[in-house]
Amino acid sequence: MLEHLKQQVLDANLALPRYGLVTFTWGNVSAIDREQGVIVIKPSGVSYDDMKRDDMVVVDLSTGQVIEGDKRPSSDTDTHRALYLAWPHIGGIVHTHSRHATIWAQAGKDLPAWGTTHADDFYGAIPCTRQMRDDEIRDRYEWQTGQVIIETLQQRSIDPLAIPAVLVNSHGPFAWGRSAEDAVHSAVVLEEVAYMGIFSQQLTPQLPAVQQVLLDKHYLRKHGKNAYYGQK
Amino acid sequence: MLEHLKQQVLDANLALPRYGLVTFTWGNVSAIDREQGVIVIKPSGVSYDDMKRDDMVVVDLSTGQVIEGDKRPSSDTDTHRALYLAWPHIGGIVHTHSRHATIWAQAGKDLPAWGTTHADDFYGAIPCTRQMRDDEIRDRYEWQTGQVIIETLQQRSIDPLAIPAVLVNSHGPFAWGRSAEDAVHSAVVLEEVAYMGIFSQQLTPQLPAVQQVLLDKHYLRKHGKNAYYGQK
Amino acid sequence: MLEHLKQQVLDANLALPRYGLVTFTWGNVSAIDREQGVIVIKPSGVSYDDMKRDDMVVVDLSTGQVIEGDKRPSSDTDTHRALYLAWPHIGGIVHTHSRHATIWAQAGKDLPAWGTTHADDFYGAIPCTRQMRDDEIRDRYEWQTGQVIIETLQQRSIDPLAIPAVLVNSHGPFAWGRSAEDAVHSAVVLEEVAYMGIFSQQLTPQLPAVQQVLLDKHYLRKHGKNAYYGQK
Amino acid sequence: MLEHLKQQVLDANLALPRYGLVTFTWGNVSAIDREQGVIVIKPSGVSYDDMKRDDMVVVDLSTGQVIEGDKRPSSDTDTHRALYLAWPHIGGIVHTHSRHATIWAQAGKDLPAWGTTHADDFYGAIPCTRQMRDDEIRDRYEWQTGQVIIETLQQRSIDPLAIPAVLVNSHGPFAWGRSAEDAVHSAVVLEEVAYMGIFSQQLTPQLPAVQQVLLDKHYLRKHGKNAYYGQK
Repeated sequence: MLEHLKQQVLDANLALPRYGLVTFTWGNVSAIDREQGVIVIKPSGVSYDDMKRDDMVVVDLSTGQVIEGDKRPSSDTDTHRALYLAWPHIGGIVHTHSRHATIWAQAGKDLPAWGTTHADDFYGAIPCTRQMRDDEIRDRYEWQTGQVIIETLQQRSIDPLAIPAVLVNSHGPFAWGRSAEDAVHSAVVLEEVAYMGIFSQQLTPQLPAVQQVLLDKHYLRKHGKNAYYGQK
Repeated sequence: MLEHLKQQVLDANLALPRYGLVTFTWGNVSAIDREQGVIVIKPSGVSYDDMKRDDMVVVDLSTGQVIEGDKRPSSDTDTHRALYLAWPHIGGIVHTHSRHATIWAQAGKDLPAWGTTHADDFYGAIPCTRQMRDDEIRDRYEWQTGQVIIETLQQRSIDPLAIPAVLVNSHGPFAWGRSAEDAVHSAVVLEEVAYMGIFSQQLTPQLPAVQQVLLDKHYLRKHGKNAYYGQK
Repeated sequence: MLEHLKQQVLDANLALPRYGLVTFTWGNVSAIDREQGVIVIKPSGVSYDDMKRDDMVVVDLSTGQVIEGDKRPSSDTDTHRALYLAWPHIGGIVHTHSRHATIWAQAGKDLPAWGTTHADDFYGAIPCTRQMRDDEIRDRYEWQTGQVIIETLQQRSIDPLAIPAVLVNSHGPFAWGRSAEDAVHSAVVLEEVAYMGIFSQQLTPQLPAVQQVLLDKHYLRKHGKNAYYGQK
Repeated sequence: MLEHLKQQVLDANLALPRYGLVTFTWGNVSAIDREQGVIVIKPSGVSYDDMKRDDMVVVDLSTGQVIEGDKRPSSDTDTHRALYLAWPHIGGIVHTHSRHATIWAQAGKDLPAWGTTHADDFYGAIPCTRQMRDDEIRDRYEWQTGQVIIETLQQRSIDPLAIPAVLVNSHGPFAWGRSAEDAVHSAVVLEEVAYMGIFSQQLTPQLPAVQQVLLDKHYLRKHGKNAYYGQK
C-alpha cells in the first residue's frame, strides 16, 4: 500500500523538473495516507536525477517522527503536516520556488483571477500570506508557515480545494489537491497564470478581475457537479 | 477520406506542444470536411502524449452531434462550429492559451501590427473581442463565444483569411486558416508577435502601427496573387 | 569549391534554429565567393529540417540571376547582394526575426553598448535604420532595404566589420561577418544583448553607454591587432 | 592529484551550458590547489563541446605563469588569481555573462535579498562594484577587476563565503565557493534571483529587503553550524 503511495510521490516529485518548476534539489511533494495517519514526502536536498521510490520518507502525521526511510525528510515537512491536519480533504501538497509564482510571493501581492486559464482551476484570486512575525520565524518556523497559510485561507473564507494554492510572503508558492498529481497540476497552472499576470497588468494597469459570471462558468464546467470538461 | 482528415487533425494537435503553445491537455485543433458537413476535432481533456488518430471525434457541423468516436469532443466544439458556419473559406481552427497571446486577451487589448513579422501573415491589427454579456456566458457559452468572434470581425470589416486570429477577451486566442496546418501556423505567428509586441511597446510607448505601404508589401509578397515568397 | 561554400552556408543556416533565432522557414544566411562573383544563399520558404547542401542557391552577385540550383533563392537575396557589393570585406550575411533584436527594430531604436558582452563583438551602438519611404518600399523593396542599411552605416561613419549588425526599422536584424559562421556569431550576440538591453534599461532608466575606455578594452582584446582572447 | 582537480574543473565548466548560463565559449570556471599554489582554469575561447580534461590549464597562483597545458588560459585568469590570493577560504570561481545577473551588472545596481531563494544561499544583497577608473581599465585590466571586487566586499565588510557572488559593473557576475562545484551553484542561484528580482520590483516598486529574521533563518538552516537542510 505505501509502496504505491511512495511511487506516486516519487512520480509527482519527478514531474517538477519536467515542468520546469525547480532547480537543483529545490521543491518537494508529499501525499497522505489518512487511514494510516502517515505522510510520504521527498527527502531533503536529494538530487532529482538520483531519487528512487525508496528514498521517499514516511512520517507520522501527528508527531512528525520518521517511521520509515534512511533519509531526512524535506525540511518543509512540518508545513505539509500543518496543512494536512487542518484540511481533511486534501491528499497531496507541492512546494516549489517556481520563478513567476515566487515573484508574486516576493512582491507580497495576491494574484488576481485575470482570465479563464486561472478560472479553470482556481475559483478566485490566489492569496499572498501576511509577513510572519519574528517569533513565528524563530520558533518552529516550518510549522508556523503552515499556520499562517491556514489563517490566510480562513480569514478570507477560502475552501482549500476551490483555490488550491497560496503565495507565502517573501518565500514562494505552496499548492495542493486531492492527490500528489493534482497538487502538481495546481503548481503548474499557478506558475502559468503568475507569468501571464505580470505582463497582463503591464499592458493594462489597474486591470480588473475577470467577470464573476465567467469565473463561475469556467470553474464549474471543469469542477462543478455538472462539469462537462474532459472524458466523463 | 476522414482517416486522412483525422490524421491531419492529429498532426496539427501534436504540433501545439512542439511549438510550446500548450500545457497539459489545453488547446485544441479541428478541421472541416465541407462536402460531408462534418468537423474532426480533438477529444476533451486527453493527454497529447497518448492521443491517437482514432481518438479524433467526428461531429456534425449543423447539429453538433457526435457522429463517430468514443470520446467526448473538445468542450470548445461549439465555438469551432460557429466559425465554420459563418466563414465558408476556412478549413481549420486552433484554440490555445499560449502565454503571450493570452496576455493580450487578458489585458483586453488589440494587438497592433508593429512589424513585418506581423505583416507577413496578418493584414492588420489582431482584434480583441468585447467582454461577453452575462446571458451569453450563462447560456450556450461556447456557441456565444463564436458569435462574439464573428461579430468582432464583422464590425471591423475584417476578412477572416486576411487576419486569421482573434483574442477572446479575458480568455485567449483562436486562430484559423485554410487547413488545420495553416491554423497552427497562424497560432504560432500570433504568439511570436504577441511576445514582441509587449516589449516593443515598453521600449517605445505610443508606438504607431507599421506604415501601410510596408504592411501591404509584406502581406502581399506572401499572400497576394503576385506572391513571390517561398517555392512557387 | 562551391560545394565547400554551399556546405558552409547550409551549416550556418542550420545553426539558426539551434540557437533559437528562427521559427518555421524564417531567416536566411548567405556567403560570397568574391573571385567567382557569386553568392550562395538559402532557398526561400524551405523547412530547416529538410534542407540539404544542394538546395543552396547560387546567385550572380552583379545581376541577381540564379546560376545554379532548382529552388528560388531567399526573397531577401537582393538585400544580401546590396551589402556584398557595398562592403568588400564581408563574407557572410544573416537575416533573422530573432525576438529581442526584432523588438528593438520594431521600436525603431538603436541598441546602445551597455556592457562588455556588447563591447566584445560590437564597437558601439547597433544602429536602427530610418523608416523607408513609400517609393523605396514599392519599388525594388529588398534592394532598397540594402541601400538604407548602407546609408545608415555610412552616415554614422561605421565600419561594417566593427559593428557587424543593423536593426532594420519595423522589420528585424541583419548581421554579417568575414564568413557565414561569423555572421551567425554576430546574430547570436546581437540577440543576447538585445534581450539584456531591454531589462537593463528598465532597471536604470536613462542608462548611459559603457565607458569608452571599457568599450575599447573589450573590443580590442578580442579584435585588435594585439588581441589576446582565444587560442593563438 | 591535479588530474582529479582538472576533472572537477572540466565538470564544473560543462555544467555552465547545461544550466543555460553561457553561449559559445563565454564563461569560465577555475579551482585552486592551495598546497601546490596552482590554479586549474578553462582555456580561452575553446568550445564547450570539444573541451577535454587535459585542455584545462594549470597556472601558478603567484606569478600567473602557465605551468602545464598547451592552451592559453582564460583571458580572465588574473581576476581569478586576485580573488584566490585575497580570500584564503574559497576553492573555486565562476565567471559568466548569464542574462539576468548581467542585466543587474549593466544597470549598475546591487541585487537586494528579496526572498528566501536568495536567503538560502546569500546572506544579504549581492553587491555591484563601482565603475573602474580609466587607468585600471588600461593597465592590467583583469587583475584590477579582481582588485575592485575585493575592495567592494571589503568596504561593505562582506565575508566572501557568506555572499559568494558579485556583479562587476557594466560587465557581469563572478561567483565562488569552497569548490568549483560550489561556485557553479552560487552562479545558478544568482541567475535565478536576478531574474526574479527584476519582476518582483516591477510588481512592487520600492520593495524592501526580506526581513532580517527571515534572512537569518533561511541562511542559517542551510549554512549555519546548526544547519538542518539536506542529508547530514
